[in-house]
Amino acid sequence: MLNICLICVGRMREKHYISAFSEYEKRLKTYCKFELIELPEVRLPQAPSQAEIDAGLAKEAEEIEKRIPSGSYLIAMCIEGSQLSSSDFAGLIQKCANEGKSRICFVVGSSFGLDKCIKNRADFHLSMSLMTFPHHLARVMLAEQIYRGIMINEGSKYHK
Amino acid sequence: MLNICLICVGRMREKHYISAFSEYEKRLKTYCKFELIELPEVRLPQAPSQAEIDAGLAKEAEEIEKRIPSGSYLIAMCIEGSQLSSSDFAGLIQKCANEGKSRICFVVGSSFGLDKCIKNRADFHLSMSLMTFPHHLARVMLAEQIYRGIMINEGSKYHK
Repeated sequence: MLNICLICVGRMREKHYISAFSEYEKRLKTYCKFELIELPEVRLPQAPSQAEIDAGLAKEAEEIEKRIPSGSYLIAMCIEGSQLSSSDFAGLIQKCANEGKSRICFVVGSSFGLDKCIKNRADFHLSMSLMTFPHHLARVMLAEQIYRGIMINEGSKYHK
Repeated sequence: MLNICLICVGRMREKHYISAFSEYEKRLKTYCKFELIELPEVRLPQAPSQAEIDAGLAKEAEEIEKRIPSGSYLIAMCIEGSQLSSSDFAGLIQKCANEGKSRICFVVGSSFGLDKCIKNRADFHLSMSLMTFPHHLARVMLAEQIYRGIMINEGSKYHK
């Protein structure tokens, strides 16, 4: 069974995003092992310097690295990554499964993104849009796309 | 004052999306006149033919056309449209305001998209992603981007 892990920095606060995410999480659990790991966001001063941001990202990266399941196909979410259509994204999930990489780990950074070391280590850099979305909304969007991808691979009518 | 109208086909059902949308709607109303017009989705049989889909889209388009405020800058949301970064999208909103087109109308179609006549009439075709999102989630994403765009133009810290 496909094993999907989603590592996110920052705890979701908005009830509507928590509820939307839970809905996709519930649906996903019928088709795969799905685990959400929420890591604390490093607190930064109100107007942080680049050095403070970088130090925060590096600290967050240390915690992320500890939680990436060994042997995972690692997908880092970043705005400068490659965009895929939902069908091509479904193809990527299928390819991992076909090649025996049944463990896929997605990483969504904090509002300042992800440290370079996570990006360097990743097998794929995925961007959902040229637009910047709040990372909590991005998490809902990603959960929906993972569900959609699995539905495409299952031949379901969810994706028209 | 900027006047933004969002014409959407289909009524939102999921509480979490209704609540997320309302949050951005509430915030937007401080900065612009914002109106959501929800039009009924034409009911189609379970496995509609292309002709049935096209007829449904044409009927939806008739209702959409009646509601587009005259003199609007019309933005049709379609997956094959142009993608913009949030900053460039903010620039598009600002450009409309600068050129005296203070009325912007966005159209989000039903799950089968938009009829050609709406696309042909539009001043801009906007795509938020190569990925297909449920149109209710797309509505939340768009409301957030309009809010973000206005925040960028206001010089707010919302967009980092």
